[in-house]
Amino acid sequence: QTSVALSGTVDVGVRHVKNGRLGSIDSEVSGANTTSKLVVQVRESLGNGLSAGVYLDSTLLGDTGAVNTPFWDRRATVSLSHDRFGEIRLGRDWAPTHLLWSELDPFITLGIAGANSFRSVFASQALGQAFGVSTDANQLNPTLRIANTAQYFLPTGLGGVHGSLLVSAGEGGSAGAGAAKTDGGRLAWRGERLMVGVAQVTTRNANAGRDFTDRVWGASYEFKVVKVSVGQRQWRYGMDKTTNTLVAALVPLGFGDLKFTLVRADQQGATAALSANDATLIGAGYVHHLSKRTALYAHASRIANKGGASFSVAGGPAVSRVATAVNYFGGQRSTAFESGIRHNF
Amino acid sequence: QTSVALSGTVDVGVRHVKNGRLGSIDSEVSGANTTSKLVVQVRESLGNGLSAGVYLDSTLLGDTGAVNTPFWDRRATVSLSHDRFGEIRLGRDWAPTHLLWSELDPFITLGIAGANSFRSVFASQALGQAFGVSTDANQLNPTLRIANTAQYFLPTGLGGVHGSLLVSAGEGGSAGAGAAKTDGGRLAWRGERLMVGVAQVTTRNANAGRDFTDRVWGASYEFKVVKVSVGQRQWRYGMDKTTNTLVAALVPLGFGDLKFTLVRADQQGATAALSANDATLIGAGYVHHLSKRTALYAHASRIANKGGASFSVAGGPAVSRVATAVNYFGGQRSTAFESGIRHNF
Amino acid sequence: QTSVALSGTVDVGVRHVKNGRLGSIDSEVSGANTTSKLVVQVRESLGNGLSAGVYLDSTLLGDTGAVNTPFWDRRATVSLSHDRFGEIRLGRDWAPTHLLWSELDPFITLGIAGANSFRSVFASQALGQAFGVSTDANQLNPTLRIANTAQYFLPTGLGGVHGSLLVSAGEGGSAGAGAAKTDGGRLAWRGERLMVGVAQVTTRNANAGRDFTDRVWGASYEFKVVKVSVGQRQWRYGMDKTTNTLVAALVPLGFGDLKFTLVRADQQGATAALSANDATLIGAGYVHHLSKRTALYAHASRIANKGGASFSVAGGPAVSRVATAVNYFGGQRSTAFESGIRHNF
Repeated sequence: QTSVALSGTVDVGVRHVKNGRLGSIDSEVSGANTTSKLVVQVRESLGNGLSAGVYLDSTLLGDTGAVNTPFWDRRATVSLSHDRFGEIRLGRDWAPTHLLWSELDPFITLGIAGANSFRSVFASQALGQAFGVSTDANQLNPTLRIANTAQYFLPTGLGGVHGSLLVSAGEGGSAGAGAAKTDGGRLAWRGERLMVGVAQVTTRNANAGRDFTDRVWGASYEFKVVKVSVGQRQWRYGMDKTTNTLVAALVPLGFGDLKFTLVRADQQGATAALSANDATLIGAGYVHHLSKRTALYAHASRIANKGGASFSVAGGPAVSRVATAVNYFGGQRSTAFESGIRHNF
Repeated sequence: QTSVALSGTVDVGVRHVKNGRLGSIDSEVSGANTTSKLVVQVRESLGNGLSAGVYLDSTLLGDTGAVNTPFWDRRATVSLSHDRFGEIRLGRDWAPTHLLWSELDPFITLGIAGANSFRSVFASQALGQAFGVSTDANQLNPTLRIANTAQYFLPTGLGGVHGSLLVSAGEGGSAGAGAAKTDGGRLAWRGERLMVGVAQVTTRNANAGRDFTDRVWGASYEFKVVKVSVGQRQWRYGMDKTTNTLVAALVPLGFGDLKFTLVRADQQGATAALSANDATLIGAGYVHHLSKRTALYAHASRIANKGGASFSVAGGPAVSRVATAVNYFGGQRSTAFESGIRHNF
Repeated sequence: QTSVALSGTVDVGVRHVKNGRLGSIDSEVSGANTTSKLVVQVRESLGNGLSAGVYLDSTLLGDTGAVNTPFWDRRATVSLSHDRFGEIRLGRDWAPTHLLWSELDPFITLGIAGANSFRSVFASQALGQAFGVSTDANQLNPTLRIANTAQYFLPTGLGGVHGSLLVSAGEGGSAGAGAAKTDGGRLAWRGERLMVGVAQVTTRNANAGRDFTDRVWGASYEFKVVKVSVGQRQWRYGMDKTTNTLVAALVPLGFGDLKFTLVRADQQGATAALSANDATLIGAGYVHHLSKRTALYAHASRIANKGGASFSVAGGPAVSRVATAVNYFGGQRSTAFESGIRHNF
């Protein structure tokens, strides 16, 4: 039997971002609670525990109607999967590190309080050195999704143990432009209340031939009234490191969810000045369920920079980390609020 | 309950356009009767009169296989709607002025006889001054669709009164490139045979900081054998005005429809010469229904320019309004014929 | 009745290509067995033997998630079709020559052993002279698909005779960029075991105003254990000709298929040197059916060049036919292997 399913999300909200003394911008945004997207999903049972699957997933921007490049940017895979032996999957896929990191984050790395708020080639010294400071690199570097991958996933039924091993072909391209020669994987264990996991991706065609490593570890525990997560994600390239530390909580209320997060970016570099460029994000949010598929949400967050750190919430006035620029943002604060409607279909 | 529906149109025809002494071009065209498109539509009933909805609509060009930028150019919205209180809708959406204008036009603004034939930043002084004379501005200026909108729609059941209020965030972008800081709305009444309506959109980030206004009023009446429409649409930017006046008729024959239209563009500007640049479109068409979804059609039209006016039917040899250009078109005539097949699915 | 069907393919594999002394590249590739794509297909019965149809077909690259330009690159058509009188189809469609050529090829022109391996504006003198040596021309020239077409197809039920007549509007564009003023057609007969056919497309807006012709003839016969195909495809532009000669075999084993192919490119040109630039492709493959929809496959192939011929299997190190270039490939060999998973849905 084969089934073809068309599904997706449209999530649109309004956002206010104030970047210190650079002023503020009001905008409409897409995907602050759940990424707006269109998904085609296919599964065919081949008998004897074997099945084939296809997954196509395309980000869309509900505010403007735009799509990303590549069109099927979130995932484009074909796979063979066996109940007992696991799954082989080929195509464009998620970075194993991202899968663990977004699982730890009650904001699943989205919106103004997401745990990827420091994932910026412009502000993270390690990302910028490894992949260059272009808009492409900020969008396409392999800390989110990876093209040309082959991946093996452990089967379910290993007592809660799950994970994957991934390799990808660089094909002579630039990792900043999305063509990464990588290997990596994820290993995690999920019990009734506890989840613990580690993940790593090493990119071998980062700039200047040095390896870039992206490492995540973390754990979450579901207490009676709150699920608490702690974790770290470190990007390392030569002497430059950006270490993201997350402490977060999700309080399910039945009719809605409360979310709290604290993410700290600790940078280390060749000089004391570079090592002082740290930042802290605090965020809170409430999601009100109108149904299983439809929700209203509101988020608030603040990024506080130290030293010359120039992180900011996306959607505000443009900032620079160059000390002589008119919009130099080193050491300043970015504060934000957003609210919207999300519908999964 | 949720339903996901995939629908759309493919409409392809052949067109002949003769632009005065510049000669003629034969081409294949898309969307002369109904815009070729792919649509994803979702509605979830949330109970108590409330429902959530998603609408994604992407123009496609059936003649070449191309799509527009942004991909979901026609609409990308999420909405909450209540039977009694109306609807809140966020995303990329239609200009309220366009909705009324296209409702008045038996050609729904499409093809060689459509009431948007004078919607050209190259030939309308008001549009060109407000948004610039680029291809992007011709496609993306907010007289058709608007990005980053929030819109409130009146509920049904108000005795035929319907309408909406819209605001959109400019986000610091250029209105000519599709990022418009607008407010506007539409108010109309529909009885058994009579419809009357008004609409306005004001764009606050037009060139040079001046406001651009787009105003429509109109009425239609369904006589026994013919539906007659009259209306006006005025684009105003500083001293420049283009006033489109429409008188049109639709004769439903059961097995088909006859359509007749007369649209006059009256321009006013800073000089007598600019004010003399007027033009008149006359058009006629026949649509033959093979089924509710499938039709054959044929249209004929002529644009006659006065003074230096250089309007032309789309699809002919390139024209210029610059008097010294070799393809200067001021005061000349553009005549056109087209015929095609349309299938809605 | 109307039916809307969403279907498609994701086919991803890994490929190794060694280009003589230029070295080798390992890559992940899409569509080596069947083109990865998303298809929307509609058919409405109109009664009395008449039906309307829509076909939208978009290549996707399963390895990277990318799509082609135009988005609906494979086909975008609307059609009216009658059981007895045949079909009229408008839009972007396949070249009649390609339809016959791919039917003769057990590899349906895909992957490293496909019969389009010599379809390169960079290496075929006739294609390069006619359409220019740009990446666009290599992708968009009208030997694969043609925009702005109108086509008539013979009905079924003519005792095995089938075929079509096609014209397309050039619309003043460049044939290398996909806008071709063409006429052409295909005529074939299929019996129980034998198929014979001829096809031609003439492009009237090739470079320098000369006509470009693309001609195919071929036959296939289904013996008890093997289907054998022979055929020729000739591209001709002025004094330059590239003649592809195909001899191929398909051995259906039930659980899988064996495929063998030999394609020879014989070039003729203004000089003896140009006429000596010939090449030969040999290829073999095995497709293992996991179901009707899902398959594993492995292909091997080799291109051997003579004289200054510089054909190569796609996916290897970049080659040049310029004798002074560091990556000059004249007379060298390209060898390749690929293996992957294909799922049709």
